[in-house]
Order: sequence, then C-alpha cells, then structure tokens
Amino acid sequence: MTEPAPVFASGVDNERLNAQLRFLLEVDKLKRVLRQNLLVDGSRRENSAEHSWHMALSARTFAEYAPEGTDIDRAVEMLVLHDIVEIDAGDTFLFDGADAETRAARERAAADRIFPLLPEDQAERARELWEEFEARTTPEARFARAVDRLSPMLANWHNEGGAWVRFGFTRAQVMEKVKLIQEGSEALGAYATALVDDADRRGYFRA
Amino acid sequence: MTEPAPVFASGVDNERLNAQLRFLLEVDKLKRVLRQNLLVDGSRRENSAEHSWHMALSARTFAEYAPEGTDIDRAVEMLVLHDIVEIDAGDTFLFDGADAETRAARERAAADRIFPLLPEDQAERARELWEEFEARTTPEARFARAVDRLSPMLANWHNEGGAWVRFGFTRAQVMEKVKLIQEGSEALGAYATALVDDADRRGYFRA
Repeated sequence: MTEPAPVFASGVDNERLNAQLRFLLEVDKLKRVLRQNLLVDGSRRENSAEHSWHMALSARTFAEYAPEGTDIDRAVEMLVLHDIVEIDAGDTFLFDGADAETRAARERAAADRIFPLLPEDQAERARELWEEFEARTTPEARFARAVDRLSPMLANWHNEGGAWVRFGFTRAQVMEKVKLIQEGSEALGAYATALVDDADRRGYFRA
Repeated sequence: MTEPAPVFASGVDNERLNAQLRFLLEVDKLKRVLRQNLLVDGSRRENSAEHSWHMALSARTFAEYAPEGTDIDRAVEMLVLHDIVEIDAGDTFLFDGADAETRAARERAAADRIFPLLPEDQAERARELWEEFEARTTPEARFARAVDRLSPMLANWHNEGGAWVRFGFTRAQVMEKVKLIQEGSEALGAYATALVDDADRRGYFRA
C-alpha cells in the first residue's frame, strides 16, 4: 500500500485533508469484519460495512415510525458510524454473554484509536455520536438502535430461523432483545413481536 | 426464503410497512454486486453496498469541501441510494464505453422496477434523488458525484495503480474523469489532480 499523496492545492489545509483521508482509508477495514447473520439470500455472512449501509437506508425508510421530532439525519449519521469500533473490537454476537462483558472495554479502546485519526473537531463529533448511540440517551439513538436490532431478526426470519436455529435460542431469549426495539419505536417493536410470534409458529425457537 | 410476516400492530398501516420491508429485503441484493476496484487492502473486489456506506461516510467527512450552502444530508441520502439500480443493471465500469452506452437504459429500467416497491410517496422521493444524482442538476448532486468519483482513484492509487494498471489507462484518460470531481468540489478536484500527478510519477499510467 502507498501512503496518502501530498496535496498541493492552494486554499486547502493539507494536514487536515490528509488526516481525513487516513481516517477514510482506515475505516475501509470495516468491510472485512464479519457478522454472525447471513445476507437475506443466505449466500454468505454479512460484513459490518454493508450492514451499516443497509441500516442507513432502513432508518430513512422507517423514519415515520420514529417518535415525532426525531432528527432522522442524525440517526442516519450514527448508523453510518456505529460499527467502526468493530475494526479493532470485532463484531460481538448479541447473544454471547461472555463476549459482551469485555465488549465495552474493547470498543472504547477502538474508539480511542480510530476516531482521533480525524481532525480534532470531527473526531469529537464522531465520538459524541457513537457514545450517544451506545448510551441511548436521545430519541435519535434509541431509534437508530431499534433499526439496528430489528435487522438481524429479519435476516434470521428469512433464512428459516438462521442464527436463532443455529444457536438454539428460545422465544424468551429473543423477546428479551425486542425490548430495545420497542423503546426506540412503538411500531417497529410491534412488528418485531409479530415476527417472533410467527417464527415461533414456524418452530424456529428451542422449546 | 420466507415472505414478510403479517403485521398485527394497531395504529400501523400494514400494507405500507410491508411495502417498505419488501424494498429493504430486495435492496439487500446490492451486497452481491461487485465493482472493478479492490478494497483498500487489495484483498478482494468491493461490492456496491459497502461502497455506498463508504461514500456516505466520505461525503460527511469531506463536507467542508462542498460549495457553501450544500445540504450534506441530502448528498448523503443520494449516495445511500445511488447504486441501487445496479441490482438489475450491474456495475458499469467507468472506462467501459460500450457498456456505458446501454447503461442509462438499463439503469432506468431498474429504477422503474425497484423504487416502486416502496410506498408511492417514498418511491417518488427516491426516484427524484436518483435522477438528481445522475443529472447533476444541484450542488448536492455534483458534490455527491465528486465524492463517488474520487473513491476508486484513491483505491487504485493505494493498490499500486490497481485498475489503472490492470486495464492500461493513460494519464489523459484518467484526467478526463477528474473534471467531474472539479465540478463538485474545487478542493477535492485539486486533490485528485495531485493524486494523478503522483500516480504518473510512479509509472501507474500507460505512456
């Protein structure tokens, strides 16, 4: 690999532009982070970059189900950024309790390394959005999290139970995860519940 | 694959929600469309979904290089949508003249099929944004196109010339593509020119 080229453009802060380029080249690695769930067609595992794209589009498409006054642009911005920490921390499977315990520390270390590749003002904003997403302190974060949580449920449901079947989850375990969807969007929470009911009828859950 | 589950949520337009779900499931196929350029690390070809994610993040990161008054949220929305037509039309390589001739018709047919999966108001907005992106009639579209055009240049440059070397392009052929970057952002156009100069020094172009 070649290092970023020097910029000779007048009127451009070259140090700043090169910092932005280094960040964008670094986050390209998110395309190599694999998630547990498959693509909708079941052909292979999904990576976290293409997942983030689908989440940005989903949040926009489902905008009307966010509480009134939710800033969808901000929710989309969060979803575009939300998985970048996985470049160092890896994807943590939602149902892996042991992994989840160390997840917060690993992701924080990743945020400490990756966001500061950006110029300081942009690094601060990215960090702030990521913290907000994690802490679910705003309607935007709660809605973004709801959309992100619904997505693997749809994929599992479309793949004859997918990871639910593969790992042998019970209905109760999956319903526990639906709570976070309900907190971000009443309508999407209701849909997720209907989906779990249907998956249960189809025998996708361990008794 | 299982068809979308019926929704029993009260207060939700079930027909509308199911149309949105069908659209989101359909566009998942963009993860299977491969582009000519490689990931930054050179490990494999990039797909159009993960590319769209990287473009959304790039537009936000480069926001300050857009002409004053450019609505970056709208540019990001365009970039999230811009490649969806490739699900049917395939990715058209920038330097493939013959393919480019039939591209417009193929992409229009794809837009006619895919966007109307959405509820009518959303389908109209998506179509409008895509047409705007293609026609470059606004600062948002010109900036989004500039970001989209710069990206494969960066990837080629980082991969010892990448597709430039593989297909044997001249400096003049590549500089022809830089014009569109200049039209969307003076600073990014200047950077692209510096990149081509450097690539030329490194011998990445056919004489």
